[in-house]
Amino acid sequence: MKEFVVRPIGVVRSALKDPADAPKQGALTGQEAEIIVDPAYLPALDGLERRVAAAENTDFGDGGYRKGGKIIVICWMDRADRGRLKVHPQGQEELPERGVFSTRSPHRPNPVSLHTVTLLSIEGNVLRVRGMDAIDGTPVVDIKSHSPELDG
Amino acid sequence: MKEFVVRPIGVVRSALKDPADAPKQGALTGQEAEIIVDPAYLPALDGLERRVAAAENTDFGDGGYRKGGKIIVICWMDRADRGRLKVHPQGQEELPERGVFSTRSPHRPNPVSLHTVTLLSIEGNVLRVRGMDAIDGTPVVDIKSHSPELDG
Repeated sequence: MKEFVVRPIGVVRSALKDPADAPKQGALTGQEAEIIVDPAYLPALDGLERRVAAAENTDFGDGGYRKGGKIIVICWMDRADRGRLKVHPQGQEELPERGVFSTRSPHRPNPVSLHTVTLLSIEGNVLRVRGMDAIDGTPVVDIKSHSPELDG
Repeated sequence: MKEFVVRPIGVVRSALKDPADAPKQGALTGQEAEIIVDPAYLPALDGLERRVAAAENTDFGDGGYRKGGKIIVICWMDRADRGRLKVHPQGQEELPERGVFSTRSPHRPNPVSLHTVTLLSIEGNVLRVRGMDAIDGTPVVDIKSHSPELDG
């Protein structure tokens, strides 16, 4: 099958420096981090300011727009083992191995990760988010609005 | 920044043959489709059978495993315009343009799409799913278990 090239649009800045530090499903821990977006993509951030958590209850008067402070950050887990097809779930050796497609393991053929996070602020090309378990330096490949109807 | 290579692990088979046919946010329409997984990745599907919707209320006795019939299928929208940084939301010309990162438009620098779908059946390397709006032939790059806590 045809291959495609991923070109990162930004990078994660976080106090989590090592994969060993990263809590499993750390989204649930409230870890804060920054997404530094390549300035070339600044126009693509336009509109995200409405997603800032503080604006959650603001009426922007444009009807169809879903309010709420959540966005989805998609990363490329560049330290993952792309050859692993089975893992012990949550790294727990006592649990039998399962196929990676039935887990959230970083190890998978295309190590794309999803992070549904709360958008705290945007200043220029810097997004501050809460609930981010990716480690410092992880390449960011996409940002999307989160929709409870589509994603919940 | 360093680039990465995406190698599709499967393909979508759907009655939706043309982007013009694909409903916006068609996840909400209940469209059914098949995910044909490259047989090389069969071991990575192991465990997904527990996600089949019919098994939603089955107790597999392994504690931490979250039950439910939903999985996340990640595609590469190979017909997208990667140069577009702003779009009219939902393709509606009367709405002012917004940055693609604040939308779910297929047009974005790395055209990765998320599809939270109901897993209806697995037969060999063929997954039947409901709520899939990707068009026929779309490359699939990843499959993950869905978690209401992480993704909702």
